Amino acid sequence: MKKALAFDIGGTKIYSTIIDEEGKIIADIDKFSTPKTIEGIKDVLKKQIGKFEQDVDFIAIATAGAVNNENTAVIGSTGNLVEGYYTIDFQSLSSKRVFLENDANAAAWAEYKIGASQGSSVSVMLTLGTGVGGGIIINDRLLKGKSGAAGEMHFKMYPDKRRKCTCGSWDCFESYASGTALKWDAEEALNNPDVTTYDVIDGVKNCDNKMIEIFERWQRDIAIGIMGLANLFDPDCVVLSGSMAQFVDIKKIEDEVNKDIVTAPTSVRLATAGNYSGMIGAVLLGAKEVK
Amino acid sequence: MKKALAFDIGGTKIYSTIIDEEGKIIADIDKFSTPKTIEGIKDVLKKQIGKFEQDVDFIAIATAGAVNNENTAVIGSTGNLVEGYYTIDFQSLSSKRVFLENDANAAAWAEYKIGASQGSSVSVMLTLGTGVGGGIIINDRLLKGKSGAAGEMHFKMYPDKRRKCTCGSWDCFESYASGTALKWDAEEALNNPDVTTYDVIDGVKNCDNKMIEIFERWQRDIAIGIMGLANLFDPDCVVLSGSMAQFVDIKKIEDEVNKDIVTAPTSVRLATAGNYSGMIGAVLLGAKEVK
Repeated sequence: MKKALAFDIGGTKIYSTIIDEEGKIIADIDKFSTPKTIEGIKDVLKKQIGKFEQDVDFIAIATAGAVNNENTAVIGSTGNLVEGYYTIDFQSLSSKRVFLENDANAAAWAEYKIGASQGSSVSVMLTLGTGVGGGIIINDRLLKGKSGAAGEMHFKMYPDKRRKCTCGSWDCFESYASGTALKWDAEEALNNPDVTTYDVIDGVKNCDNKMIEIFERWQRDIAIGIMGLANLFDPDCVVLSGSMAQFVDIKKIEDEVNKDIVTAPTSVRLATAGNYSGMIGAVLLGAKEVK
Repeated sequence: MKKALAFDIGGTKIYSTIIDEEGKIIADIDKFSTPKTIEGIKDVLKKQIGKFEQDVDFIAIATAGAVNNENTAVIGSTGNLVEGYYTIDFQSLSSKRVFLENDANAAAWAEYKIGASQGSSVSVMLTLGTGVGGGIIINDRLLKGKSGAAGEMHFKMYPDKRRKCTCGSWDCFESYASGTALKWDAEEALNNPDVTTYDVIDGVKNCDNKMIEIFERWQRDIAIGIMGLANLFDPDCVVLSGSMAQFVDIKKIEDEVNKDIVTAPTSVRLATAGNYSGMIGAVLLGAKEVK
């Protein structure tokens, strides 16, 4: 059975382990703080590759940022990684094939193969974390688009420039549905720049009505975005993953989405492929490509 | 060469002609007012089928409303056709195979095969008319979704219930980007319920500043919707068709879309497959299915 040395490269942490072609994690999970320089990131990768390369068939990397259709390079800048990250020649770090995919795309594939969207002809996955990631699978294929960057959850929630998005544009779904967005909602509602996402979550747990109202607005915005996606893709299901997904009321969102849907009712589900679904998905995708 | 008797069934008119499998129209275009009863619609179809059935290999129908994945039936109600339209058993009207597809999907396929989006790996088509239709083609396949209804342009432009959409929900893209939406924009801006879409178009032609402002708002809303679609699908191109497409400034919309795009720049184009692209696309799609 093929196996791969897997990485998940995010803005704050790099994870690494060995995963087999069925998606089973077969080694310890190594964890590193993401270096703030390109050389630093390359050093982390090189050290791991040096240790484990001989034991695996290929290297699979789930990374922040859009990945090209050849799965060899990151295209363009990624907000929360070091400037110039996309210039890294990942293949040069190993003699084995290095397979890259965007982290949200990879996680969506893991959900499709071993998680919550198994058997779906069309599925949409949203990762609700610091930002919002997206991965769309149609007829057993990841939607990549002409450049590889498809699935960006940057459609507008307002047309009239209210809230700056991290992407440089205004009012994208990400800027209303992310964990950071929940903080912004609270800042606006409470006129307090110091309130945090977790203040809201704690407030909801403690039945604070104001915090509940803020949370409900955030959750309704997520439902409104999903409704649009459901009308575009007519998916079997929409899977929610990421650190913020555990806090939402899945059933309530599903009801809200289906109340006004013009296609056919869809199913909203919590992700089940676990915290390392990015690495698992990258390995499952890579295993199809690497002979 | 295969040929088909084609129909385009819309809210006000039914068109019919004969088209060959290369998309060439090889007979006169017949035109009927759409009857207001199911029996009336069936009579129009039956009369044409009786006349031409023996000359063709199959029947191809581009119709308002979502069409199932088997291309045999309309699913659910369609706003501007008679109540219960979806109960029509189209196959019972002919001894030849009757192939159905949604009109916007069919027109998108015609653009892909003989029109403006030829050669695109991913393309999105919008028909800007009384309403807004959509057809999305990914890797040589129409995006149909689990039920066949994908490509509905009912994502929200506002999350806070401002304008009722014809679909029953609120603030969908359709209700800001259609010809009717331009009338609504004008009604709101001028506080005049009698102003028409064509008053605005005429005003723009006559350099009326207020009408230009109304038109620009409408056109900006179209660009904002396309930007979201471009970030989701990363398409080679977005094709605009329908009666309103002729009035928009394609280059301006393309610039607006690409200014803030997070994927990769896309091309916005005017449709070129002509007024009968729905019928042509239905025949081209049907020809793949009918042996």
